[in-house]
Amino acid sequence: MNQSISSSIEEAHRLIEKDIHRTAVLTSDSLNKLLNVELFFKCENFQKIGAFKMRGASHFIHKLAKKHELSGLKVVTHSSGNHAQAVALAAKKKGIKAFIVMPSNAPKVKVEGVKSYGAEIVFCEPTLQAREAEMNKIREREKAVFIPPYDHEDIVLGQATAAKELLEEVVDLEILMAPVGGGGLLAGTALSAKAYSPATIVIGCEPKMADDAYRSFHSGKWVPSTNPKTLADGLKTSLGELNFRLIMENVEDIICCTEEGMINAMQLIWERMKIVVEPSAAVPLACILENEELFRNKKVGIILSGGNVDLNEFFDLLSTKIQS
Amino acid sequence: MNQSISSSIEEAHRLIEKDIHRTAVLTSDSLNKLLNVELFFKCENFQKIGAFKMRGASHFIHKLAKKHELSGLKVVTHSSGNHAQAVALAAKKKGIKAFIVMPSNAPKVKVEGVKSYGAEIVFCEPTLQAREAEMNKIREREKAVFIPPYDHEDIVLGQATAAKELLEEVVDLEILMAPVGGGGLLAGTALSAKAYSPATIVIGCEPKMADDAYRSFHSGKWVPSTNPKTLADGLKTSLGELNFRLIMENVEDIICCTEEGMINAMQLIWERMKIVVEPSAAVPLACILENEELFRNKKVGIILSGGNVDLNEFFDLLSTKIQS
Repeated sequence: MNQSISSSIEEAHRLIEKDIHRTAVLTSDSLNKLLNVELFFKCENFQKIGAFKMRGASHFIHKLAKKHELSGLKVVTHSSGNHAQAVALAAKKKGIKAFIVMPSNAPKVKVEGVKSYGAEIVFCEPTLQAREAEMNKIREREKAVFIPPYDHEDIVLGQATAAKELLEEVVDLEILMAPVGGGGLLAGTALSAKAYSPATIVIGCEPKMADDAYRSFHSGKWVPSTNPKTLADGLKTSLGELNFRLIMENVEDIICCTEEGMINAMQLIWERMKIVVEPSAAVPLACILENEELFRNKKVGIILSGGNVDLNEFFDLLSTKIQS
Repeated sequence: MNQSISSSIEEAHRLIEKDIHRTAVLTSDSLNKLLNVELFFKCENFQKIGAFKMRGASHFIHKLAKKHELSGLKVVTHSSGNHAQAVALAAKKKGIKAFIVMPSNAPKVKVEGVKSYGAEIVFCEPTLQAREAEMNKIREREKAVFIPPYDHEDIVLGQATAAKELLEEVVDLEILMAPVGGGGLLAGTALSAKAYSPATIVIGCEPKMADDAYRSFHSGKWVPSTNPKTLADGLKTSLGELNFRLIMENVEDIICCTEEGMINAMQLIWERMKIVVEPSAAVPLACILENEELFRNKKVGIILSGGNVDLNEFFDLLSTKIQS
């Protein structure tokens, strides 16, 4: 079983390696000292499009291209976030036309990112229903293939390559942590741990304000995400069905953090490590901050999932300080 | 001559290498494409204490320790910024007592940084006169040795090691850029270029709002910094005397950027590279943005001088968005 998982992950890695960065693993003496833990951060904020999503989208599209004639192949997805940019860029690299359905209130910076990769953007009302309806129209009209954001084997295997790289570089991790939204990253991380470092315990991390994965995991019964109010955009979505199963099988625990803890952890990472991470990426460190005794003196890996933050307010504020 | 410069820089590097990080050199496809230039960023924002200042302070203290008995040795400096933290940490590493005179309005985060390295802080009125008077009192009372912030050979040789590392890693740079305030980093950068890559042109970069080095360089006559209003704290100071001489001899040009250009460049670095740099560090990229034709298709190195920015306002703003 582990053999076949590892060969699937290795195939995924080979397919996508030219389209992704092998991102840095950073450490911070000052954070280690502060928290009495030995941390290894896998910096997917440095990944192309600024998030791990590039891995899964790229893998899905490579597999698709193996099954179809490239000419005339079209893909479509709906997303206001990192998945939109990932599909746009991964499609561009294969020379495939991509349609991205985005809510009309999507942040300008994300819209421009998608545009810059040459995808065609279709705007719709900012509801899930409107997004899906618009996407289905395009699927039919263009015969475009839907690229799912997280709940698909090829997406999970792509995301698994981040943990694979980390485990190749840092041996004997006792714990490996990743945030959980739709579950693609966490499921992939757990598969890589099983395949490459079975003694490593995998822990999923979620904001209390969007704790559907926590509740699903601990009840053993899938619970949808309802009215999540977290600042971690990327983690608002419900856990995927396939991912729920993979997580139940391969993840040791799911723990939660407060919104305040998440913001504190994010500030610690920016200040001590001088890197920009998005709120979702700070959730594992927040879980450590709020459960210090569980991690004391442990060797812990963290997947920093992404670094796409709207900085306009900060820089507008800075600009007002310019004197003349 | 170059032989003796290079052996001095090499000695400096050997003395300090255990006390500093050999910082990463980062590139960004997206910035290269945007600006039609091939950029190599030497990330001194990742340096200990978050800035290149650690190199010079560490070197000065190592040389001092060679000349004196360590026991009873005390050092003192005045600074509200990166030099304060650098002296505090470099002294701690040698087991030397450090006194740091800081203005009473110094940012809390910098005061706490200095404290955390075990230095003794003495507060004074926020004027240069008050700082110097307080420092002189301590020099006399404690027989403490003054660690100059920039205008000293041992400081310059320490700062030179950043460019040395960059030139070892990236060959054939056509241009190498560094910001200029007191001139220690720029003078050191130019010495390393002379020693290790004489074909590389060194350009100093300064905000227009603090253009004393620009005016000194282009008139050939030292001009003091008067009433600088730049947001680049680190670049407000006047050019040092020794550094002015070294810069006149070894630097090809000094160019300036606007405050708006500096903020834009800073935002580009944060957004595209996902790293935190301080305004001073963004000045070279701003000079490229505002003088694109000079740099088109060139292979350019930039010393990113530091990453110490007060992030409290940004995170306070973010905290207000937490819903309950």
